[in-house]
Amino acid sequence: MPGVMPEASKTDVVIVGAGPAGLMLATWLAHTGIHARLLDKRQTKIFTGQADGLQCRTQEIFESFGFADRVAKEAYKMEEFSMWNPSPSGVLRRDERFPDTPVGISRFHESVLHQGRIERFFLDNIGKYAEMTGAGVSVERGVLPLSIEIDEETAEDPDAYPVTMVLRHLTEEEATPEQSKSGSGVEDGLFRSNLAPDDTADLVRRTSGKEGREEVVRAKYVVGCDGAHSWVRSQLGFRLEGEPTDYIWGVLDIVPITNFPDIRNRCSVHSEASGSLMVIPRENSLVRLYVQLNEVQPDAETGRADRTSITPEKILKAAQKTLAPYTLEYKHCHWWTAYQIGQRVGTQFSKLERVFLAGDAVHTHSPKAGQGMNVSMQDSYNLGWKIAHCVQKKAPRSILKTYQSERRRIAQDLIAFDHKFSRLFSGRPAKDAADEAGVDLKEFKRVFLQGAMFASGLSVDYGRSMLVFKEGSAKEQGDGTDVVGNVKVVASKQELAKNCPVGMRFPTFQVLNQSGGRPWQFQQWLKSDGRYRVVLFAGNVKDTIQQKRVRTWCEEAEKEGSWLKRHTPKDKAINSIIEILTIHSSARKETELLDDFPALLHPLRENDMGWDYEKVFVDDVSYHHGDGRAYEGYGVDKARGCVVAVRPDGYTGFIGELEDVDGLDSYFAACLLDV
Amino acid sequence: MPGVMPEASKTDVVIVGAGPAGLMLATWLAHTGIHARLLDKRQTKIFTGQADGLQCRTQEIFESFGFADRVAKEAYKMEEFSMWNPSPSGVLRRDERFPDTPVGISRFHESVLHQGRIERFFLDNIGKYAEMTGAGVSVERGVLPLSIEIDEETAEDPDAYPVTMVLRHLTEEEATPEQSKSGSGVEDGLFRSNLAPDDTADLVRRTSGKEGREEVVRAKYVVGCDGAHSWVRSQLGFRLEGEPTDYIWGVLDIVPITNFPDIRNRCSVHSEASGSLMVIPRENSLVRLYVQLNEVQPDAETGRADRTSITPEKILKAAQKTLAPYTLEYKHCHWWTAYQIGQRVGTQFSKLERVFLAGDAVHTHSPKAGQGMNVSMQDSYNLGWKIAHCVQKKAPRSILKTYQSERRRIAQDLIAFDHKFSRLFSGRPAKDAADEAGVDLKEFKRVFLQGAMFASGLSVDYGRSMLVFKEGSAKEQGDGTDVVGNVKVVASKQELAKNCPVGMRFPTFQVLNQSGGRPWQFQQWLKSDGRYRVVLFAGNVKDTIQQKRVRTWCEEAEKEGSWLKRHTPKDKAINSIIEILTIHSSARKETELLDDFPALLHPLRENDMGWDYEKVFVDDVSYHHGDGRAYEGYGVDKARGCVVAVRPDGYTGFIGELEDVDGLDSYFAACLLDV
Repeated sequence: MPGVMPEASKTDVVIVGAGPAGLMLATWLAHTGIHARLLDKRQTKIFTGQADGLQCRTQEIFESFGFADRVAKEAYKMEEFSMWNPSPSGVLRRDERFPDTPVGISRFHESVLHQGRIERFFLDNIGKYAEMTGAGVSVERGVLPLSIEIDEETAEDPDAYPVTMVLRHLTEEEATPEQSKSGSGVEDGLFRSNLAPDDTADLVRRTSGKEGREEVVRAKYVVGCDGAHSWVRSQLGFRLEGEPTDYIWGVLDIVPITNFPDIRNRCSVHSEASGSLMVIPRENSLVRLYVQLNEVQPDAETGRADRTSITPEKILKAAQKTLAPYTLEYKHCHWWTAYQIGQRVGTQFSKLERVFLAGDAVHTHSPKAGQGMNVSMQDSYNLGWKIAHCVQKKAPRSILKTYQSERRRIAQDLIAFDHKFSRLFSGRPAKDAADEAGVDLKEFKRVFLQGAMFASGLSVDYGRSMLVFKEGSAKEQGDGTDVVGNVKVVASKQELAKNCPVGMRFPTFQVLNQSGGRPWQFQQWLKSDGRYRVVLFAGNVKDTIQQKRVRTWCEEAEKEGSWLKRHTPKDKAINSIIEILTIHSSARKETELLDDFPALLHPLRENDMGWDYEKVFVDDVSYHHGDGRAYEGYGVDKARGCVVAVRPDGYTGFIGELEDVDGLDSYFAACLLDV
Repeated sequence: MPGVMPEASKTDVVIVGAGPAGLMLATWLAHTGIHARLLDKRQTKIFTGQADGLQCRTQEIFESFGFADRVAKEAYKMEEFSMWNPSPSGVLRRDERFPDTPVGISRFHESVLHQGRIERFFLDNIGKYAEMTGAGVSVERGVLPLSIEIDEETAEDPDAYPVTMVLRHLTEEEATPEQSKSGSGVEDGLFRSNLAPDDTADLVRRTSGKEGREEVVRAKYVVGCDGAHSWVRSQLGFRLEGEPTDYIWGVLDIVPITNFPDIRNRCSVHSEASGSLMVIPRENSLVRLYVQLNEVQPDAETGRADRTSITPEKILKAAQKTLAPYTLEYKHCHWWTAYQIGQRVGTQFSKLERVFLAGDAVHTHSPKAGQGMNVSMQDSYNLGWKIAHCVQKKAPRSILKTYQSERRRIAQDLIAFDHKFSRLFSGRPAKDAADEAGVDLKEFKRVFLQGAMFASGLSVDYGRSMLVFKEGSAKEQGDGTDVVGNVKVVASKQELAKNCPVGMRFPTFQVLNQSGGRPWQFQQWLKSDGRYRVVLFAGNVKDTIQQKRVRTWCEEAEKEGSWLKRHTPKDKAINSIIEILTIHSSARKETELLDDFPALLHPLRENDMGWDYEKVFVDDVSYHHGDGRAYEGYGVDKARGCVVAVRPDGYTGFIGELEDVDGLDSYFAACLLDV
């Protein structure tokens, strides 16, 4: 192959599709210093409409990259969910209201912001970190992939670039923006006036100088984040399995003029006989309405509806009927579209662990649960660091199998939930208990509340694998892929950290910095920088016996060939591959960083920067923000502590005693290569 | 004058000096849509060193402009203050530790970030808002003022441009950066590597095309924010009153290598006989040390010390002596300087209320209390909206007299505090009760704790004036200026809002948006946009009698010639000059925005944007963040409520019953002109 195409350039990773899934992947690569090209055939990013709900877990991930604050500043926070149902006499009324995000599950709550802003935050973050790490991540628009080939012979060679792609740089004529093709680009004056100043530059087409030319690129990895009609998927010959449903829905993004009382709350509205709708309040006075279009029926033969007959006026009319007797009008429509729910999952998420698919390319479903963009981003959040580790030859290629095992299973669960939820939402309310064709609204509420935890993104529980040391069957807990192989999986001692289930994201509680006393959510220190973390719950270090245990643990870690030394290059900082973070339970004011903790736990930093004061934390009460209940929250014994290994994406991988050095050794032997 | 200089351009406001005080003023003008030119002879903004403590009140002000989040993300939050004193046997030990910011006084805590970043935030904010409001605020560097003249005859004409300035646009040779002149530009490799990406552009000198030329500009107002050696002040012939002290201090910004345990806390260190120092931990591992230099003595005749003999090595050596037996070294010095404390206040803060002075131009003092930059910024925060109102002819020019009355008094208080604090800090600790020459460290602690409230910026209490309707003597409560004149000052009914003292900044508590249920700190809605606010504590609106009172209050406000209508142009939104914000005390879930509140309280927005859902708040418990104690916090009766008028800068101006329409009328008649 190299002989055939000598003019080919090389890059570590090619990402096809610069939507949220592709941008999330590029963000990982920028943070970990990987060379990557993010290609999109569109000329600009999205400015209006599209997916916009942001789950709790998604915002935690944004925080780990450093831009959750921008979401917090611009997004609309949804506090309340109201259910509007017909009264016994058929009149619409507010039946229930409850918190939109279950209380206590996260510091973040479901928020809404249009996709264009989220893409902006990703792009800025990629630019910042690519410069810091020297990653060389380029975002190239107006680039169309023409072909993709994998050299199967070198697929398992860690030094090879087995994927070859031919790309075409589009001319201005070829690059008609996707948005105007879709027929949904209403965009009145509000569009540009709502545009943030930092977006205006993106409206100007930038010329690359390569327009009209073709190019060959060879990559170690290619990821297709190119949406429901994925070109990468079709090139690989993979399919989505599932069927479209009978339900046609319209979407309106408007500034409503209405006397409906809950227009600034998320609402489900089931009318007696005029269909359903969902209200999603948004930033900048916008409201998104998902409106059931009962009058548009799918073709009996193809199962597909003719969407060309749908107009914003038709969607408004349907909404007005559903909301009666309340009135609804608008003068400003930001965006609109119509869709037919299709619930489908891809059969395979990768080919030879060299070309991967993520996001809508491998799962489609209804947008109303605010899941699509989130699950898509979390796909590539799961994948990005694994690819980075393999490119950097830190990890064996076998870990890449866990991507399909972990994420295909999530997609299957999502589709099952969406199927149930959509049916209940689209159905006509039952008149009484005998009305079996109708939907029982009590059941709708039950499913909704059950689904809220799922929808938060926090219930994800990855199965047993070489990255998740827990009991059970790896195949049953995943999608059936073998993700253990020859690895010796030592079961974690889950009882030592009762509330940190292995396979789930490591939870967060407030702790204080030992030196400065500043309160932090511990999660704020689990940054997405590609490092594993060992959280040393050091217990009560003022106790002589426990102090001894901690010192012994550190001595073991510092021995040649230890779980720490084996995987850390000699010329790199001791924290560069696996970072040790300590949380102790003694009183902060009775403890001194330098006296009570071995140097390994607060190492001298490179370049004569003195001691590292940001590694040792304490579970104690702060001056201004209370607390001191982190051990209780994590479910860890305050006297004896324990050791928890956390994956680079924040999921718990292993739990053991301070003496379980062998377990830690096995865990990292599975995740990482020796140096 | 116009005949003499026909080529003169006009601008509403010229600001001399683009430091924090000047930038704060320009920010006000950008937010209120005023045409202004901000001039600085330096070529770039500050990148290192300089003042860096940010008080609570300063951060509240930043929030009101929309950039407190950037401080929160980058600054070091100081949690703890430690006092290190000699033990009876003379050995240095930690004597006390307590919260650096008194508990409960503000959502913000004292934070540290170097001035360059703060200037960056201002510049970005000015750019953003000047574009939104069409203000046309330009920041011009390398521009030197040559002369300034005031036409006294037209000084009171609101349409006149009575101030004429000649400016020189410097050539590259003339524009040697201030920083390299000061001799303190150590800046090792850390300097550029610590530079945030959004700052690098500022290192490149931008040419204006006017280099070497002179220009005449005529302005309505000129503000000198040009520092302790103010050119504007000397042109006006005004003086600073006060004397330099005997104390010489050195400042080092370093990354310390030390075994001193409290290097990440703010500390005062009094050694037995080797002087004092203060530790100020900072962002990016930096620490600022203020070090007393006992070996450098001021000249007996001039009272001034020879600072040329001071080097960073000398400062380090003095610090090492003070900190012994702890060790201190460094490899990275970011910046250093030395200063002699001088406590001085300007005799006059303005000439004819056409040329003003702010910041260091009218008060100098020691930097250790973290006051300087904060008080300077708060000077121009006090002044900016008043100038804007006069330029826009919304307000009578008489309100400008309140600037000197309010801020000169603050400067006097500051100098009195600084005098006491500096003496106690610089003095040798007393050996015992009989040692009268020594400093009683118990007294030092007392003064420090008393001063903490002062240092937070939250104890500011502006005196009686046309803008502050309260009891007492306007002259005694201010600096002696007459700030009442012929105005009929109706005393507020302070007892109706016990915890909102008239003249102090309106406090903040959590309230919920009535429509969406989202919790907000009420202060987040007191944006610095130039509007007065009337906070209607509507009480229990579900009570019929109270409901009637609220409706009557609204009817009165909507009458022709009312306090609201008199000052609001007919073609402008009803909220454009005075914004009404409502906080009620009924249960949120039993109240409906459209049914229970007159339209005036949630008016239809311009441009067919529907009802305004962001004007009515409720004192109720949120789903995720508790509370429902705002009425209690404000000290307002939950049943009957009251009415509070708040100035554009957030200070309480008037308090009355819902029936005290005449009082409200008098208040706004004093603050605002009729349209």
